Amino acid sequence: MKFSTEYLTFNTKKHRELINITKEVERILIGSGIKEGMALVSAMHITAGVFINDAESGLHRDIEEWLQKLAPEGPDYFHHRTGESNGDAHLKNLLVGHQVIVPVTKGTLDMGPWQQIFYAEFDGQRNKRLVIKIMGE
Amino acid sequence: MKFSTEYLTFNTKKHRELINITKEVERILIGSGIKEGMALVSAMHITAGVFINDAESGLHRDIEEWLQKLAPEGPDYFHHRTGESNGDAHLKNLLVGHQVIVPVTKGTLDMGPWQQIFYAEFDGQRNKRLVIKIMGE
Amino acid sequence: MKFSTEYLTFNTKKHRELINITKEVERILIGSGIKEGMALVSAMHITAGVFINDAESGLHRDIEEWLQKLAPEGPDYFHHRTGESNGDAHLKNLLVGHQVIVPVTKGTLDMGPWQQIFYAEFDGQRNKRLVIKIMGE
Repeated sequence: MKFSTEYLTFNTKKHRELINITKEVERILIGSGIKEGMALVSAMHITAGVFINDAESGLHRDIEEWLQKLAPEGPDYFHHRTGESNGDAHLKNLLVGHQVIVPVTKGTLDMGPWQQIFYAEFDGQRNKRLVIKIMGE
Repeated sequence: MKFSTEYLTFNTKKHRELINITKEVERILIGSGIKEGMALVSAMHITAGVFINDAESGLHRDIEEWLQKLAPEGPDYFHHRTGESNGDAHLKNLLVGHQVIVPVTKGTLDMGPWQQIFYAEFDGQRNKRLVIKIMGE
Repeated sequence: MKFSTEYLTFNTKKHRELINITKEVERILIGSGIKEGMALVSAMHITAGVFINDAESGLHRDIEEWLQKLAPEGPDYFHHRTGESNGDAHLKNLLVGHQVIVPVTKGTLDMGPWQQIFYAEFDGQRNKRLVIKIMGE
């Protein structure tokens, strides 16, 4: 049984940003030599998400607007009494989730043709980490 | 260590549909001979979901209405400038998630008495795939 | 290959409640002797959630208000025609998810410094179960 554990660090230029990390995960999978198993991709922060969706820029604008509608950025969260200003980022994290697990089959990420893995930064412009753990044979 | 990988294809009659796939996953688990491990059930499309909930038709109507409220079908998504018309299906996918992982204990899906696994089609009437990967011993 | 399977039972005093179960999961991990692998933490009910977020009481009030806004408690769900009154709890479960999977590295839960695992009860005051399954070496 083999394990591979790697960490990525992001420091986005914008406060919110979507980053396609599919090729990074593929690179780590190839380096691991694992042919069958599961790859867990998980944000290590509570103000960032990880999801699988389409690499289409119009859709990404839709996702941004949708997240702002359902978990709006604003000044009124109880969380802000601690001095923080990122209450919305915590809710966005809950909404889209912070992790995906990708099946590994014949040495590849066993995803559909349009599925791409995204790191979703909701409170960026500082170092944020993500863990990729692959387990299998 | 054992692995079992199977694919299901759905072609729903309706545009949106909920399909209980618990028995299919159980059938695949039994065929795999795996007694301890984890079963990943994951849609291979970005306009479909997989979730665990109750097999109650009233609740399914509630889920349909709720999804329409929070991620409405409509003509105004940026994504539609590509010629697509399924922006809402992408957001519904983000809302409920596209995968679950079920513990396998003593050769059975280790779920609670009301937990059933559903494939949630949000843009159907064409072939859509799902992968079931079981890993264990 | 090692497996550890344990069940926790909650009977909350309040109808809705957030319970930090990080230390329980750590205790089970240490007991398992597993050093590398994955720990699945999964509610066995369809009216409860499991998520990872911050242990900050103001944020927890924000989460409560947000869940009530997006999946409100009310009398009008179709599901209630069965005699149930917990339609909102089912939708809250779909919104935040019912499971997380935590990487296990060097015998510890490989999470970021603010990440804590919460059991989210949405329809409590009765026994509800959760399964923790750890798989690895």
